[in-house]
Amino acid sequence: MNVAVMGYGIVGSGVAEVLAKEHDSIAKRSLQEELSLKYILDIRDFPDDPNAGKFVRDFDVILQDESVQIVVETMGGLHPAYEYVLACLQAGKSVVTSNKELVAEKGDELLAAAKAHGVNFMFEASVGGGIPIIRPISQCLAANELDEIAGILNGTTNYILTQMIQEGLDFDTALAQAQELGYAEKDPTADVDGHDACRKICILAALCFGTHVYPKEVHTEGIRAITLADVDYARAWGGVIKLLARAARSDDGQITAIVSPALVKNSSQLAGVNDVFNAILVRGDALGDVVFYGRGAGKLPTASAVVADVVDCARNQGKNRMLLWDGAKSAYVRDYLDCETAFLVRAESADVPAALADAERVFGSVQVLTREGAAAGEFAFVTPTDTERALRAKLGTLLGVRVLSAIRAVGY
Amino acid sequence: MNVAVMGYGIVGSGVAEVLAKEHDSIAKRSLQEELSLKYILDIRDFPDDPNAGKFVRDFDVILQDESVQIVVETMGGLHPAYEYVLACLQAGKSVVTSNKELVAEKGDELLAAAKAHGVNFMFEASVGGGIPIIRPISQCLAANELDEIAGILNGTTNYILTQMIQEGLDFDTALAQAQELGYAEKDPTADVDGHDACRKICILAALCFGTHVYPKEVHTEGIRAITLADVDYARAWGGVIKLLARAARSDDGQITAIVSPALVKNSSQLAGVNDVFNAILVRGDALGDVVFYGRGAGKLPTASAVVADVVDCARNQGKNRMLLWDGAKSAYVRDYLDCETAFLVRAESADVPAALADAERVFGSVQVLTREGAAAGEFAFVTPTDTERALRAKLGTLLGVRVLSAIRAVGY
Repeated sequence: MNVAVMGYGIVGSGVAEVLAKEHDSIAKRSLQEELSLKYILDIRDFPDDPNAGKFVRDFDVILQDESVQIVVETMGGLHPAYEYVLACLQAGKSVVTSNKELVAEKGDELLAAAKAHGVNFMFEASVGGGIPIIRPISQCLAANELDEIAGILNGTTNYILTQMIQEGLDFDTALAQAQELGYAEKDPTADVDGHDACRKICILAALCFGTHVYPKEVHTEGIRAITLADVDYARAWGGVIKLLARAARSDDGQITAIVSPALVKNSSQLAGVNDVFNAILVRGDALGDVVFYGRGAGKLPTASAVVADVVDCARNQGKNRMLLWDGAKSAYVRDYLDCETAFLVRAESADVPAALADAERVFGSVQVLTREGAAAGEFAFVTPTDTERALRAKLGTLLGVRVLSAIRAVGY
Repeated sequence: MNVAVMGYGIVGSGVAEVLAKEHDSIAKRSLQEELSLKYILDIRDFPDDPNAGKFVRDFDVILQDESVQIVVETMGGLHPAYEYVLACLQAGKSVVTSNKELVAEKGDELLAAAKAHGVNFMFEASVGGGIPIIRPISQCLAANELDEIAGILNGTTNYILTQMIQEGLDFDTALAQAQELGYAEKDPTADVDGHDACRKICILAALCFGTHVYPKEVHTEGIRAITLADVDYARAWGGVIKLLARAARSDDGQITAIVSPALVKNSSQLAGVNDVFNAILVRGDALGDVVFYGRGAGKLPTASAVVADVVDCARNQGKNRMLLWDGAKSAYVRDYLDCETAFLVRAESADVPAALADAERVFGSVQVLTREGAAAGEFAFVTPTDTERALRAKLGTLLGVRVLSAIRAVGY
């Protein structure tokens, strides 16, 4: 069975490497099928590459070669990845991708195209790198209602937050260090502003709830505004700040999805997930909480997830086997302001005792936190749980108080 | 499609409950097949049970009913579970089990019987309760060499150790508390002496390495001998004591499997696994470390894993799809004494400075640990890494020293 790889970047070249290295064990596991890498689509030249003879620059070569039954898309970006993948599926080729943007924006349509043409569209590597998560969730779903999912889905921001928490580096210094180590891009927007995590939670939410959730419907906040003062107050509260992507379905069937910094207690399984590691927590009615942990990125982990999908495509050639989710119903997405949360509020006032008394009055009761080295006039407290809308309205009524930050506290 | 459940204990009744509750979603996921619970085999009477009309006492009723295509075995124990399961497979029925003893002792034979008769033998629930682990490992294997697996596989002992570490209870008190809460049996042998964890690591090792490892070949130590002094020294070292089940394959293809108390550093993902929770760490060459975490037991988590297997059997009726492992080759199992480890040694001597100087001399260098409240003459140190055989020989040469405990330190 012939395979083509589109895009010979970090993941694409890793796929070629894993396909070569695991050739024999793959043949055994793919029900005795040999998998041969026939083409690599890239516009660049790789004259010294072991696969140098396989490069093509024209997508049509792959599309029109009927002997190519599985196509790996590791180009990234929405275009032309979307057009190429759709054309492959329509031509009866199964497609495996690591491209989270593609799946988050076009997953419903591409799954439907795969089903219509009796082939498979698989994307295990699009979330959590090498951590098996898409299939285990499908498996959990067989006997559980999954109503909540929460994860640390972006390694770059988790590395930065870990440096802030453990080493006391401020955001800018931690970001610069992450860039130096190759954990963050020169333009770190997609990571630090939460867009990468947003795409991943869209995919997970679609899988858990059976309906597409588009990135633009997900309230997304990054970690640029997090300060060492926030980190200190989180510690005083007995927890840490993580960039969490969360999705939940309420009893009325409405879906909430949000990406934001969030406080988790030190006893949470998510609190100990440090550096570039990812973790995904799934909450099932029969199952309770299950957590999957591992490297969320990296050449070989991600490539190994792609190759596992390729093997699964080979084993299921001619038989569409992925669970399908439907197109989005926008009415099902709930405004994040209507969801319940508690806030860790950091603020300043010329009269802190009066401000705290006012906060007590407005919120009923608050948990006051202190830290060493706080500037004069700085104070912090944790509110009771209420809708975010109500909490924000109440914060707005505090007299003589400037709110510096308000970070959600969650119960995972 | 008709299903029979053999054994209406905690898990078996949970299976009936989940099958009823998730009936519609199961029908959707089983490729539109309806699953009907037709028989329940049990010798007891359940006159007030909602399934009262389905009870049979004669196994042959199930065996000879061709409309029963999937049989769930939740009786436990080796006999007659083994004979019943084998007969079902030979009669062309797929079997799902949660019985770790059965899989650990007879898995190779039953997998071969399933293959020979074109049906499936599935056992996701036999390890890690509801945590998806058997299928994710198969998935990882598609593109990874897995050379190591380590886990906290027994909730009872993990609860006891957590109480010792966090609450300072001694072993007997913590065990009594676990029994009171229903986490430990009246006869706790299978749990506290490591036999339960041993069966589970046999299953995982067989899956990872493709060759059966029998329980009797696994060196197994429980936690009865662990004292609060050991817990204190572990804390001084920067870690905790967990009952770890481990299996590894060395470069020459030899397999080691061992169940024993082990020190893990606080930074390990296994250190924060507390109370009755389980966690399984898999180390792949491309993937790095992946950890699966969740409730390792309990009626509904375990039942949901059984039902997920039942759904998979329904989807794959008439097609054997599980990866097979071979019968054991005893030559492949390596003596645990030949494996490398470090030891946390607790000992006593009439002349501690002389004893420590002697230890320095014998081991090259040791890391001395101290704790508050140590009895006069007690001391502790961590050895360098060497084979267990060499370490034990060296311990035997220390003059005027009585070794009180030697706990392995591991690098997970």
